[in-house]
Amino acid sequence: MAGILQGSLRLRTTLKGPLSIFGSSSASGGLLHPPQPAGLRHGTARRRTLHDRDDVTKTTSPGASPERLPFSTVTLEDLDFFRRILPGRTITDPDLLESCNVDWLKSVRGSSEVLLRPQTTQEVSQILSYCNSRNLAVNTQGGNTGLVGGSVPVYDEIVLSTALMNKILSFDSISGVLTCQAGCVLEHLSVYLEQRDHIMPLDLGAKGSCHIGGNVATNAGGLRLLRYGSLHGTVLGVETVLADGQVLDCLSTLRKDNTGYDLKQLFIGSEGTLGVITAVSVLCPRKSKSVHVMFLGCETFDQLLKTFQLCRGMLGEILSAFEFLDSECMRLLNTHLKLDNPISDCPFYMVIETSGSDARHDEEKLHNFLEEAMTSSLVSDGTLATEESKAKALWSMRERVTEALRHDGFNYKYDVSLPVETIYQLVTDMRAHLGGQAKSVVGYGHMGDGNLHLNITSPTKDAKLLAAIEPFVYEWTSARRGSVSAEHGLGLKKRNYIYYSKSSRAVAVMAGIKAMLDPRGILNPYKTLPDRLL
Amino acid sequence: MAGILQGSLRLRTTLKGPLSIFGSSSASGGLLHPPQPAGLRHGTARRRTLHDRDDVTKTTSPGASPERLPFSTVTLEDLDFFRRILPGRTITDPDLLESCNVDWLKSVRGSSEVLLRPQTTQEVSQILSYCNSRNLAVNTQGGNTGLVGGSVPVYDEIVLSTALMNKILSFDSISGVLTCQAGCVLEHLSVYLEQRDHIMPLDLGAKGSCHIGGNVATNAGGLRLLRYGSLHGTVLGVETVLADGQVLDCLSTLRKDNTGYDLKQLFIGSEGTLGVITAVSVLCPRKSKSVHVMFLGCETFDQLLKTFQLCRGMLGEILSAFEFLDSECMRLLNTHLKLDNPISDCPFYMVIETSGSDARHDEEKLHNFLEEAMTSSLVSDGTLATEESKAKALWSMRERVTEALRHDGFNYKYDVSLPVETIYQLVTDMRAHLGGQAKSVVGYGHMGDGNLHLNITSPTKDAKLLAAIEPFVYEWTSARRGSVSAEHGLGLKKRNYIYYSKSSRAVAVMAGIKAMLDPRGILNPYKTLPDRLL
Repeated sequence: MAGILQGSLRLRTTLKGPLSIFGSSSASGGLLHPPQPAGLRHGTARRRTLHDRDDVTKTTSPGASPERLPFSTVTLEDLDFFRRILPGRTITDPDLLESCNVDWLKSVRGSSEVLLRPQTTQEVSQILSYCNSRNLAVNTQGGNTGLVGGSVPVYDEIVLSTALMNKILSFDSISGVLTCQAGCVLEHLSVYLEQRDHIMPLDLGAKGSCHIGGNVATNAGGLRLLRYGSLHGTVLGVETVLADGQVLDCLSTLRKDNTGYDLKQLFIGSEGTLGVITAVSVLCPRKSKSVHVMFLGCETFDQLLKTFQLCRGMLGEILSAFEFLDSECMRLLNTHLKLDNPISDCPFYMVIETSGSDARHDEEKLHNFLEEAMTSSLVSDGTLATEESKAKALWSMRERVTEALRHDGFNYKYDVSLPVETIYQLVTDMRAHLGGQAKSVVGYGHMGDGNLHLNITSPTKDAKLLAAIEPFVYEWTSARRGSVSAEHGLGLKKRNYIYYSKSSRAVAVMAGIKAMLDPRGILNPYKTLPDRLL
Repeated sequence: MAGILQGSLRLRTTLKGPLSIFGSSSASGGLLHPPQPAGLRHGTARRRTLHDRDDVTKTTSPGASPERLPFSTVTLEDLDFFRRILPGRTITDPDLLESCNVDWLKSVRGSSEVLLRPQTTQEVSQILSYCNSRNLAVNTQGGNTGLVGGSVPVYDEIVLSTALMNKILSFDSISGVLTCQAGCVLEHLSVYLEQRDHIMPLDLGAKGSCHIGGNVATNAGGLRLLRYGSLHGTVLGVETVLADGQVLDCLSTLRKDNTGYDLKQLFIGSEGTLGVITAVSVLCPRKSKSVHVMFLGCETFDQLLKTFQLCRGMLGEILSAFEFLDSECMRLLNTHLKLDNPISDCPFYMVIETSGSDARHDEEKLHNFLEEAMTSSLVSDGTLATEESKAKALWSMRERVTEALRHDGFNYKYDVSLPVETIYQLVTDMRAHLGGQAKSVVGYGHMGDGNLHLNITSPTKDAKLLAAIEPFVYEWTSARRGSVSAEHGLGLKKRNYIYYSKSSRAVAVMAGIKAMLDPRGILNPYKTLPDRLL
């Protein structure tokens, strides 16, 4: 039986990052989620609880895991209600619940005992209206591919899955605007659009599982941001159910709309803490007639930087991705996934993609660029793919680094953005700082966006190593006005590190918005915002 | 002496649109700005007022103009304070105040008696902190080029001009990120960037006067949106001073930052009602090596639509603008500005711009496109410019339509966005609806963004004509889920039309955000949000 304590203990023993820096119980800061008065927990006393919880002892540790907030617990009456509105889609079977209680990295675990699978916005509205009145916490879950513990319950929050909300509502081939429910899988949308001569403006490694609603809720970045910009620009509309069950319809399909504040922006990147995204409309670019992928190697990071600049100048409007990895990534790809280096060994590698409307023009531009890059000795070796299968193989050298890392041991993952010229210095400095303590220290990421994925591995979880990494990595980033979470979000794991990138005034405004839209704090509690306001 | 009454009367007699649809004094809706208790007007009783206001009679008309809210009036002590912190930059000379009390269209007029010209964020902070404590209303003003009465005071609000906040703070040629103060003129920034091989991601007719802070505050669209997207995507950071004087530093220069809610988005398009934008950082594209402009004519709107589709396919990544105007616009350009039609007479004209990195490639693409467009009889006539002077001349056929309209008589201006295939139908339907009542009914705009500028002229202001236009135009747009303000914003003139494009729930959330960030409502009152909540 998964009680609160068990969930909490599990959380504490499996969490990778300590959540302590702002989590101390000192009186200096105000509690962001002050314990609610018992009166808010109306109904629980006179209801039968789903499980006997008399054995529960509250954890009061000031350390990693947050205190469970005084939400109600799910009763049999609650289940009756859910089963009435979601017949056959109210799941309590522990085996079926297992996968939605654990994140993809298997780094955090909750103890939810109820999974709800609505199909319509109206059903989501009914669920939230009920949960809000009952003070039941809700964890919205898309494809559960997040890396910061944002998509799984921390305690016994009800899991609201968008998996059955997977209908495409409309596609307008003239404007390129797609409108769909939140639970559509990114790859399915991509396939649907490619058949209609369009593409999604975002692409990421998790595309086979992640939901578009989750992408929008986490403001996913990915591989196409360099060309098509962030979701704040390409998402035209969002339909959201607010905590009290009211539907906020901002599902515009217009490119321009200056009638009042752009509310949808609030929900993009709010990680399910301000509302449940039920549908989105997205501006989709035309599919390019010609796509080329290059895999190039160079000797120094400075050369890599210069190659990027050369690319921007010579490939201009056809440049659609500029990714990089270091030789340590290549070693892990060789060792764990048996992927062969398609070129000769180099300290740094680039995956460069172009997308254009005229293959001959693109090839000419690529030829000129490669000639210039080789003759000026920026690039040591390289290969160019025009066929789709070869292009995919080259892309996999970049996309499968995450997978290779999982085979290397316990992962410490950092996702920072920095002025592009400084991003690799963090990897170098971290290596020097750690000496021989880590198994691997690797750097890769989205060069064009100044976004570094710094990953450190150890044979098993290693508290001493972690103490050497943090807060070093955050302080290093903060000192350069970087972001401690470029595209992964804060979720559970990084919520208390927000102050490294945001001022206390900004966090206070965020907390004000949260309190306004979700006064009881039932939506994805313990996530995104820190435990305490400074 | 410009008292409240005078300001109010002037407003009522010069406003073009009636502000009555939601402005009735019926008890059905809650007042968005309920009269503040007299206690809030602390200090006014014991202070000497700047002018004797005993002659003031409050207007209680339920019609066009809003009631003056019970803000304090500026006293001599207030002026002393402002002169201490802004020596030589606290303006009370009526001649100097004249231009900032009247909008560019000369359609609305306020009666402010104080103009403040801060140079730094710190000064703005001091001003707002003081005004908030004194309950003095503030109207932030950039280049005063807005078209909806958002940039001028309605009554005696203090005008806070950003004109002296015109410093470029930094430009990073590697990332293309420009950081500057809010008062930089768009054209100055463009010139600065062009010298550094970059361009601003936005361009608009008012570039010679408008301030980047005003552009961001109004989420300006303009001529490059098709290619570079909206400011919600290209603005990376915003520094804002909140109503209470606190500085909210979201002046990131990073392309990616998912640490908490993206607060800067709130200020983009909020028309100065949530905070005073003091600095911004903008992601600037590389300057294209090759720019071409075509001016084409076609017989029907359906052909224009098909030409746009052909462009998207054949010009793809080099397409940077697709604008249109109708033959009525051409007539006004001929008549009032003596501009000659560069091609033969047609019912519709297009201005199409391409920007690319290789002139030869671009010309080949253009050649292929033109051949296809001519042989398939989509386009009747056209001309192509490669030289900058000729390109500018072609662009002026589109950019100077607004100017030609001003010479045609009194202007009724509408700025709607709609599904692209329906945008011109509104012009046709409006012509049929008005019969011979109007002098001219013209349509032009940003085809690629589904954004129509519908303009109607009459020899002088004509209440009967206005009654025939409105609410017809809004109902027509609303029925097609269009936006009643695509890029101009709501300002004073259109605030009460918000419900045609936004739900009452959405407006209530906006009002909640306003109340949270500006509890006394001192920032740009009477703008953007409607007088009443439904």
